[in-house]
Amino acid sequence: MSGPRPTTFVAHAALNARVGAEVTLAVESFQPTGSFKLRAADYVVRHIPNRSVIAASSGNFGAAIAYACLAAGKKCTVVMPANSVQVKVEAIRQFGGTVEFVDTARMTRAARVAELAAADPDAYVASAYDDPLVIAGNASLGREIAAAKLSLDAVVVPVGGGGLASGIVQGLRDQGDETPVIGAEPLMANDAAESLRQGRIVASDDERQTVADGARTKSLGLHNWAILRTGLATIVEVPEDTIRAGVRLLAETATLRVEPTGALTIGAIMADPARFRGRRVLCIVSGGNADPVLYQTILHEDGPGGT
Amino acid sequence: MSGPRPTTFVAHAALNARVGAEVTLAVESFQPTGSFKLRAADYVVRHIPNRSVIAASSGNFGAAIAYACLAAGKKCTVVMPANSVQVKVEAIRQFGGTVEFVDTARMTRAARVAELAAADPDAYVASAYDDPLVIAGNASLGREIAAAKLSLDAVVVPVGGGGLASGIVQGLRDQGDETPVIGAEPLMANDAAESLRQGRIVASDDERQTVADGARTKSLGLHNWAILRTGLATIVEVPEDTIRAGVRLLAETATLRVEPTGALTIGAIMADPARFRGRRVLCIVSGGNADPVLYQTILHEDGPGGT
Repeated sequence: MSGPRPTTFVAHAALNARVGAEVTLAVESFQPTGSFKLRAADYVVRHIPNRSVIAASSGNFGAAIAYACLAAGKKCTVVMPANSVQVKVEAIRQFGGTVEFVDTARMTRAARVAELAAADPDAYVASAYDDPLVIAGNASLGREIAAAKLSLDAVVVPVGGGGLASGIVQGLRDQGDETPVIGAEPLMANDAAESLRQGRIVASDDERQTVADGARTKSLGLHNWAILRTGLATIVEVPEDTIRAGVRLLAETATLRVEPTGALTIGAIMADPARFRGRRVLCIVSGGNADPVLYQTILHEDGPGGT
Repeated sequence: MSGPRPTTFVAHAALNARVGAEVTLAVESFQPTGSFKLRAADYVVRHIPNRSVIAASSGNFGAAIAYACLAAGKKCTVVMPANSVQVKVEAIRQFGGTVEFVDTARMTRAARVAELAAADPDAYVASAYDDPLVIAGNASLGREIAAAKLSLDAVVVPVGGGGLASGIVQGLRDQGDETPVIGAEPLMANDAAESLRQGRIVASDDERQTVADGARTKSLGLHNWAILRTGLATIVEVPEDTIRAGVRLLAETATLRVEPTGALTIGAIMADPARFRGRRVLCIVSGGNADPVLYQTILHEDGPGGT
């Protein structure tokens, strides 16, 4: 099994023409598990002495940690809601992960993780974002961007819990690259933008149901905030319709099939064109694991013959 | 403007599980014009003394030759049917190409090209496939595959006029790489498979309307046949439904939005699984410029919730 691969830099004249900026995409959907999350998962698993790992993510991080544990010969348990769709369960099991279901009406996932951790005191409880090892793993992408020497005006990165954004800031600055880093967050789940405005971590009361499901986290992590409070130039808040339009734009001009969270960064350019007009911008495309039915729906919204 | 870029090698465990082979994709849709055709167009334009080029392709080669001429400061004229869809006309014009329409009910495109060539005796009339310069340009991809040293059992390449397939054979053999090369051709436009069987170039009476529009050419070119008659191990003939299933499979497991011709090679594996079971196979994904409406239709055929 191979570990994380270098990112794939892509540029298309047709995309540039549509957004009015010189865009380079850093495509992470070709990682073995289809998203950047393998960078962090692989780093965590290789840098802990523990022989077993427990995680609560049922999305891309869950699949990535299962893959990384399989590659490292470690045991992996992922806690998932009992009503999870089968395709997400299979994404964990195909890499040998054990799935523990939890009835979330009766008990939180965190509580179930705590139970499992008590029963296996040697296990490492892995966070998808609030962990210095996660940030260090994701920093590899920041270093790759710095090494590509693209003479960028900005790097745009999706923001959920802040694990990727803080890793990008750390990786770029490690290499002495001072390119401004701009967050891209769903407008309807804008706790990070609100945190920057208020100068403290602001949490949502509940998980906002943005189509960008990788950015539904209620708040930034503490380790992430420590970097992002001064590390981000700003955060652009992207309306739901613009995220969906970004999915279509990347299909039609960049031949990429992305998940909505992966379109947040190009959506940020579409949402705030004046900020980016004529600039050289790197947009991180975080992953490609869209639900097939949702993906069809988004492509179809534009209607036959539309662009 | 940048020239052709190295191909992007991609592998996905989920794809392998679905086709029962160890597949590496060589993705050409990230070329600046969205298909491998830029390799040949760029090579042709840089290796001719002529200051102007005339071409009859309204598809990927037309866009590629316009792009290459723009980059080289040469003049480009593309002959297109008067009823061409606007998006294809724009694909030529966005790169500064002059579009000459022809009423194909009244005159063939070849005749119109001959007229234009007579009026501009210095112009180079570019073929999309039957030209040693085209083969030499496409050979760069064969050399890249050889250089990647992937220990392959087979390289699968789409076959239309044979420009890419002959280039792949030439590029691999130039590097001393004897990996068998297998063609992938639409069953309903199987003139190349028929040619291999009969040992001579067999031409279709008319252009068969396969969904893989990059493989609609009526016959192999002479220069291509000279290489392919002994250079191809075999050709797998792919039914239309399987080409379309290949488009969906690459979307769902490899996060790629491909045009139908780009799915011919994975379709070949799906059409003849016994041949490829457990083997290490490289599939060339030739391009991503699918018509948006057709693409939506193909994704949707599978129905909600299907895979």
